[in-house]
Amino acid sequence: LGGIFLKIWRFLEKARKLAIAEPKKVIHGLKVGLAISIVSLFYYMRPLYEGVGGNAMWAIMTVVVVFESTIGATFCKCINRVIGTSLAGLLGVGVHWIASHSSKNIEPIILGASVFLLASAATFSRFLPTIKAKFDYGVLIFILTFSFVSISGYRVDKLFEIAHERFSTIAIGTSLCIIVSMVFCPIWAGGELHQLICRNLEKLAYSLDDCVAEYFKDNKTAAVATEEDCSKKMLGYKCVLNSKATEESMVRFARWEPSHGRFNFRHPWKQYLKIGASMRNSAYCIETLNSFVNSKIQAPAHLKRHFKRICLRLSTTSSNVLQELTTTMKTTTKSSKIELLVGEMSFAVEELQNAMKSLPNHLMTTPSSSSSSTSEEANIEPVTKFTMSPFVEILPLTTLVSMLIQNAA
Amino acid sequence: LGGIFLKIWRFLEKARKLAIAEPKKVIHGLKVGLAISIVSLFYYMRPLYEGVGGNAMWAIMTVVVVFESTIGATFCKCINRVIGTSLAGLLGVGVHWIASHSSKNIEPIILGASVFLLASAATFSRFLPTIKAKFDYGVLIFILTFSFVSISGYRVDKLFEIAHERFSTIAIGTSLCIIVSMVFCPIWAGGELHQLICRNLEKLAYSLDDCVAEYFKDNKTAAVATEEDCSKKMLGYKCVLNSKATEESMVRFARWEPSHGRFNFRHPWKQYLKIGASMRNSAYCIETLNSFVNSKIQAPAHLKRHFKRICLRLSTTSSNVLQELTTTMKTTTKSSKIELLVGEMSFAVEELQNAMKSLPNHLMTTPSSSSSSTSEEANIEPVTKFTMSPFVEILPLTTLVSMLIQNAA
Repeated sequence: LGGIFLKIWRFLEKARKLAIAEPKKVIHGLKVGLAISIVSLFYYMRPLYEGVGGNAMWAIMTVVVVFESTIGATFCKCINRVIGTSLAGLLGVGVHWIASHSSKNIEPIILGASVFLLASAATFSRFLPTIKAKFDYGVLIFILTFSFVSISGYRVDKLFEIAHERFSTIAIGTSLCIIVSMVFCPIWAGGELHQLICRNLEKLAYSLDDCVAEYFKDNKTAAVATEEDCSKKMLGYKCVLNSKATEESMVRFARWEPSHGRFNFRHPWKQYLKIGASMRNSAYCIETLNSFVNSKIQAPAHLKRHFKRICLRLSTTSSNVLQELTTTMKTTTKSSKIELLVGEMSFAVEELQNAMKSLPNHLMTTPSSSSSSTSEEANIEPVTKFTMSPFVEILPLTTLVSMLIQNAA
Repeated sequence: LGGIFLKIWRFLEKARKLAIAEPKKVIHGLKVGLAISIVSLFYYMRPLYEGVGGNAMWAIMTVVVVFESTIGATFCKCINRVIGTSLAGLLGVGVHWIASHSSKNIEPIILGASVFLLASAATFSRFLPTIKAKFDYGVLIFILTFSFVSISGYRVDKLFEIAHERFSTIAIGTSLCIIVSMVFCPIWAGGELHQLICRNLEKLAYSLDDCVAEYFKDNKTAAVATEEDCSKKMLGYKCVLNSKATEESMVRFARWEPSHGRFNFRHPWKQYLKIGASMRNSAYCIETLNSFVNSKIQAPAHLKRHFKRICLRLSTTSSNVLQELTTTMKTTTKSSKIELLVGEMSFAVEELQNAMKSLPNHLMTTPSSSSSSTSEEANIEPVTKFTMSPFVEILPLTTLVSMLIQNAA
């Protein structure tokens, strides 16, 4: 029994931590509660109850199912629900009309066959990428409503009344959802996406810095505690690696949202996907880099020393560029410093390339060169990385961000 | 008008292609149609219709909402739905009992407050990772049912009857779903996962082979058509990069499935996640490699020639290991050849390391060395990759697969 209490306690502890870390999620919970309470007024007040004829259940259902944490997602689901319901309702009434004008014997056959065919086709269409991305929920509702309407038609006489009631309750539910989600502490998918990208950019900058610093650290005997602390920051790029699906769904929802705050209706959300992709590319580079930090084969100390200054400098300049990009993103204004920083970075790249050119001579002069060259690759590796990574990551980013700024201005 | 027809035609064309490529999805569509048709018999047959008292709607709804393409997912949703409904039903009846024993004035207040609090708390709990992974749908159903029951209690007298009917229709719907999905062409999440992993392993092997071959190709003037054809294969590793979410959800569902075919109930599905993770690691390596194939900085020809034989050999041996692992996975039996192949690969790694050691001398003897050393890194890069990638990818894979085989045998 104590074990169960301990589990519940741990669960509550986790919930408390999440609530403190992300108060938006608590607010979302409260908003759902509020919306359901408002919609349940239809039960408590007699005039309202009689107005919708006891079908208030559908309004509650709509609220519970449709309410999502961001406005774009709520909007998308509402539209899906309304379109799916009305389309299926019309089709269902049509099929019912055909069936009722045929002989009594084949009526259930016509109804059954139409349900079977349409449900199969609609379910299959949910696998098509275009449908899945935009209308997955709508197709589900279509199947549901069509089955209801065409089958109920066999037993229920007042089909039109039912359809009308169902439609009005859904309309009540969806409009309530949209109003509540927009009036009380609105959470915009676009804003969330923007913040996510900013956070990821920042994490990339920190990871890059820390990775290189870690690689060139002289004494590996530092306390384990600080290493763990450091690796937490270093592993920030892992979030970037796995953020593809989140970004895509957020962009999808953000495109539904009306203009709000700094974002217009036709804000170039697709640019964010491109930024995300190039960020993921640089995260791959950092991943490879990081595997060198942890690998047992280490470059000889003298080579490390030789490259330390230039590499550190390059990583600092490029992470400066990343941080400057972050502030640029945050304020959505063009930064004057960015070109200076990019220039500094390109200079560091050139310097490194020069250092690379002088490497063979260096190898010849050091006596231990031929025996250490196996592990020398571990040094050249990050160096190559650095000459590569700025090109891979910075060039598309700067062009993208400047495009973005032009669009936003 | 012609434009619309063209769009519809293109859409149908896409659907046809998908249907031919993955007949399983068509089968799933037909299964859903079948299940809905069977459940709609409750409407057409008078004795059945009277048995569930016109609430057959809920059975249809359950089928439409719960039926998923794999058995594990269907099972998971069914259990979620049943648990969520019964828990919420009990709680709702309890709250209703408390409210009905209090004075008439505060009855709606008690009901409303309980709905508000529970809905808020439950919605918030959906953000917790543990709940989200396993019981997301169940919590949604919990909110829905609790709101229904506690609010309906204010207007409807026969609360127990409603609860009973609702429960029985849901039971009918869920059991029908499970039976249909298991009897007609069953699609197991576990089997799908297994195939996905096998396919991805194969793709990795091809990508590795093609990437290296592409890098060391002498004449870059091959026809564009063949290059496109080749790059299609080369980019197979991209699928591996983005398969994390799919794998995780499949593992989650596979754990719900009873034993079937070669897979026991307690099949070590978590191992698949580890295999997936190490596959993604090697895909990152191939990604970096591939960026060198496309980069403008190319190593000088004589260096390429120097390493060509060894590098190609290493890539062949390691892709052989990958292919052997694929067949091992497919047959779930321990292969006798695998150790031989791993041995060959380690030999190739050593050979390469020796070649690396002799590199500085080679650089000294070639006259163009000091000027070409900037781009020499582009050559050493893949070489390093190869010495790294086998260690990164093969060692965990072999240990994992052998663990897997021991578990499966």
